[in-house]
Amino acid sequence: MNEVANKTGIFPICSKISLEEREFRNHQRCFVVLLTGLPASGKSTIATELERKLFDLGKHVCLLDGDNVRHGLCSDLGFSPEDRKENIRRVGEVARILANLGFICITAFISPCRKDRKMLRQMSLQGRFIEVFINAPVAVCEARDPKGLYAAARANRIKDFTGISAPYEPPLSPEVEIPTHKLTVSESVAMLLKHVLSQCRNGF
Amino acid sequence: MNEVANKTGIFPICSKISLEEREFRNHQRCFVVLLTGLPASGKSTIATELERKLFDLGKHVCLLDGDNVRHGLCSDLGFSPEDRKENIRRVGEVARILANLGFICITAFISPCRKDRKMLRQMSLQGRFIEVFINAPVAVCEARDPKGLYAAARANRIKDFTGISAPYEPPLSPEVEIPTHKLTVSESVAMLLKHVLSQCRNGF
Repeated sequence: MNEVANKTGIFPICSKISLEEREFRNHQRCFVVLLTGLPASGKSTIATELERKLFDLGKHVCLLDGDNVRHGLCSDLGFSPEDRKENIRRVGEVARILANLGFICITAFISPCRKDRKMLRQMSLQGRFIEVFINAPVAVCEARDPKGLYAAARANRIKDFTGISAPYEPPLSPEVEIPTHKLTVSESVAMLLKHVLSQCRNGF
Repeated sequence: MNEVANKTGIFPICSKISLEEREFRNHQRCFVVLLTGLPASGKSTIATELERKLFDLGKHVCLLDGDNVRHGLCSDLGFSPEDRKENIRRVGEVARILANLGFICITAFISPCRKDRKMLRQMSLQGRFIEVFINAPVAVCEARDPKGLYAAARANRIKDFTGISAPYEPPLSPEVEIPTHKLTVSESVAMLLKHVLSQCRNGF
């Protein structure tokens, strides 16, 4: 009986279906794919296209968007450093749940801090976390600015904007790096798809 | 642009894969199954057996246990009324995510309050929530007491224990009611399985 059970009468129950059984049925390994990068670097575009292509190839795949959870699971959280960290922690918990259910779970959000990305990696099963650096220079992202966010940040209408008024810590050793200023969207997606497929076929 | 996006630059992105596509591939409808009832009424036993049987029938199914999430997603929460409500809200959010990904999502937890169960129903897609009342008299549950929790509650070592020192509000119109004091485990699981299968075949 663990500490929580001792104090509260909370006993976890265990599914009788193992991860191995789910993977065997789905004919694929499962893991978490984190797309990190500056605003307008191309994360969401690549994530949605990657999900579509994997689904069309018969894979069990889902997209857990850091922004979408803000409207549901994390609707109680604000944007203080503590709340941002808690937001990432919850995304990590749900990503783990989804990967343990046999999905390739794609998550896309800025996640500017190395220590937060490290936390996400540590929350995942060993060897089942793919960090993808969606890399474009800030000048390129700012020139794209499809949502007008960089302009708003320059005008001080958005505070602590990553890349302008808040730091982005580039990954030091990501599993994949996609230079979206040098590649088309199709090329970027194809590059990432190739890597993901090699991982999910591993052993199947 | 919604309010959150206005203030924060948070824009939700949308998966390009619809629920209909996932259901079509999985050959099943998906929904949330909530098992509610007193401690030791049989929720966890029935939930794990139901998941196993559905999986063996080729269904896409998962078990989201109210106690398990206490150790992960809700590890920041205590047992105050506010925290209990937040716990249920997060379980509901994750259940919705899972059902929207094509799963039959079984959730098992006491959930003693009608208004909380109503909230869970409202969080689910219309017509995709099955409330299952695992019903046994408190005297029967107390006689079972496999974890010694009723004894601990009688000795005041656990406070606010549902059925002893905290109220349980029975469902008024559950989709299914399983009287576990009158049925064996096998009979209980078979009864629920029959209902769930009728729902997930609907239209497939």
